[in-house]
Amino acid sequence: MRIVLIGAGNLATSLSFALMHSHHEILQIYSRTIESADTLATKLIDKYGGNISTTADIASVVSDADIYIISIKDSALHDVALQLKDGREDSLFVHTAGSMHIDTLESRRRAVLYPMQTFSRSRVVDFSDIPCFVEASSADDLELVESLARSMSNNVIRLTSEDRKWLHIAAVFCCNFANHCSALAAEVLESHNIPFTVMLPLIDETTRKLHSMSPADAQTGPAVRWDENVIGRHLDILSDDANKQEIYKLMSESIREMHNS
Amino acid sequence: MRIVLIGAGNLATSLSFALMHSHHEILQIYSRTIESADTLATKLIDKYGGNISTTADIASVVSDADIYIISIKDSALHDVALQLKDGREDSLFVHTAGSMHIDTLESRRRAVLYPMQTFSRSRVVDFSDIPCFVEASSADDLELVESLARSMSNNVIRLTSEDRKWLHIAAVFCCNFANHCSALAAEVLESHNIPFTVMLPLIDETTRKLHSMSPADAQTGPAVRWDENVIGRHLDILSDDANKQEIYKLMSESIREMHNS
Repeated sequence: MRIVLIGAGNLATSLSFALMHSHHEILQIYSRTIESADTLATKLIDKYGGNISTTADIASVVSDADIYIISIKDSALHDVALQLKDGREDSLFVHTAGSMHIDTLESRRRAVLYPMQTFSRSRVVDFSDIPCFVEASSADDLELVESLARSMSNNVIRLTSEDRKWLHIAAVFCCNFANHCSALAAEVLESHNIPFTVMLPLIDETTRKLHSMSPADAQTGPAVRWDENVIGRHLDILSDDANKQEIYKLMSESIREMHNS
Repeated sequence: MRIVLIGAGNLATSLSFALMHSHHEILQIYSRTIESADTLATKLIDKYGGNISTTADIASVVSDADIYIISIKDSALHDVALQLKDGREDSLFVHTAGSMHIDTLESRRRAVLYPMQTFSRSRVVDFSDIPCFVEASSADDLELVESLARSMSNNVIRLTSEDRKWLHIAAVFCCNFANHCSALAAEVLESHNIPFTVMLPLIDETTRKLHSMSPADAQTGPAVRWDENVIGRHLDILSDDANKQEIYKLMSESIREMHNS
């Protein structure tokens, strides 16, 4: 499949490697800044060979690709898709955003391929394990986007925009918010000269448990025991840090509520 | 070393297996309920042989052990240690609680051995990877408790009660609260018939990243990009669930604040 990639951010980077790895052809990469497009194109050509043109001018995006994969920030998705759709009525437009409705694209042929993973530009993730959630505006395009996803991932799931909305919220909780819990812990440790690395065996086991127990069953700590002594002491200790104290209180009460019900 | 174990809960269970595995002798297990003590003793004898007596009567705890390891809930620690100390002035008392001061023990010879891990009774964890934080009331006993810890773990660190207090708060954030983020996600998914297992690759990668990046650098998602469209939509979607909505808001603002500073 001849693909144009719109975007060169964290997700676009991992996705483009997976596409080339699965022998798809990337004709062109568009990014708002030509440097980002060039950097990504160079990395891909170094690894997989071929030719990839780059542009930062939306009017210069080629018109003859089979698929336009738009992988940019959610707030720009609608506008960029609108600017591209005229003259490309026969091409399939695909977006990769967890929280955006398929109809945001407004093109005749629309699809979603949402690879649910945390992408940092410096890490190229193995795509084959990533759950990819797909949806399309027609049965034929659903098969097409599904086969595109299957060429990269062993874990492809059909999901409507309505259900994907909830999936994305769940992902924010168990990835973004869980990671922020570690970031808050790192701040606490740093201010007492304890290296964050001492936490890794604990964090690893917390994650490993979820492969064999539900998170509710895996819950440990003072809040689930409702050990008011420990909770009270922790809240006291955090009295100079209103933000951490408030998060501590809210999370502890939420744990208690879940386990009482 | 001849050891008496006071407690038969999650931590005591994992610890007792590690002690026997390292050829220490457990003379006796005390628990408030004789069933818990018996269950644990039977499991240990089945695996390692030997004799272990059990009791639910604090007055029947033997007096001739080298070490009394008290691994019970924090709120009971002081009282139980007080009841045991008379007549055992030559024995070393050790507690295993992350958040409790060493002097809670009040015995002449006091020490702490805090294995920082999340213990669920159904999982026996490999102790060799667990960071163990040790402290004692004398230099000799520090060496003793350190060598006891080293016989079980490759990761033994000296830490004062004052610093351990902060360490324990950090552990609550990156284990208990991070796990609760997954539990909240599981609730969201369950109410839309999406299996929680689809989250595991995302959770695994979130954890793996922390082995090579700081949690602040690893942060992704709408809050760190401060994508108000997505955040606003998520808050709307959660409007029927005040608790999740409040946690979403607080965590997102905290992520933003950390990345602005």
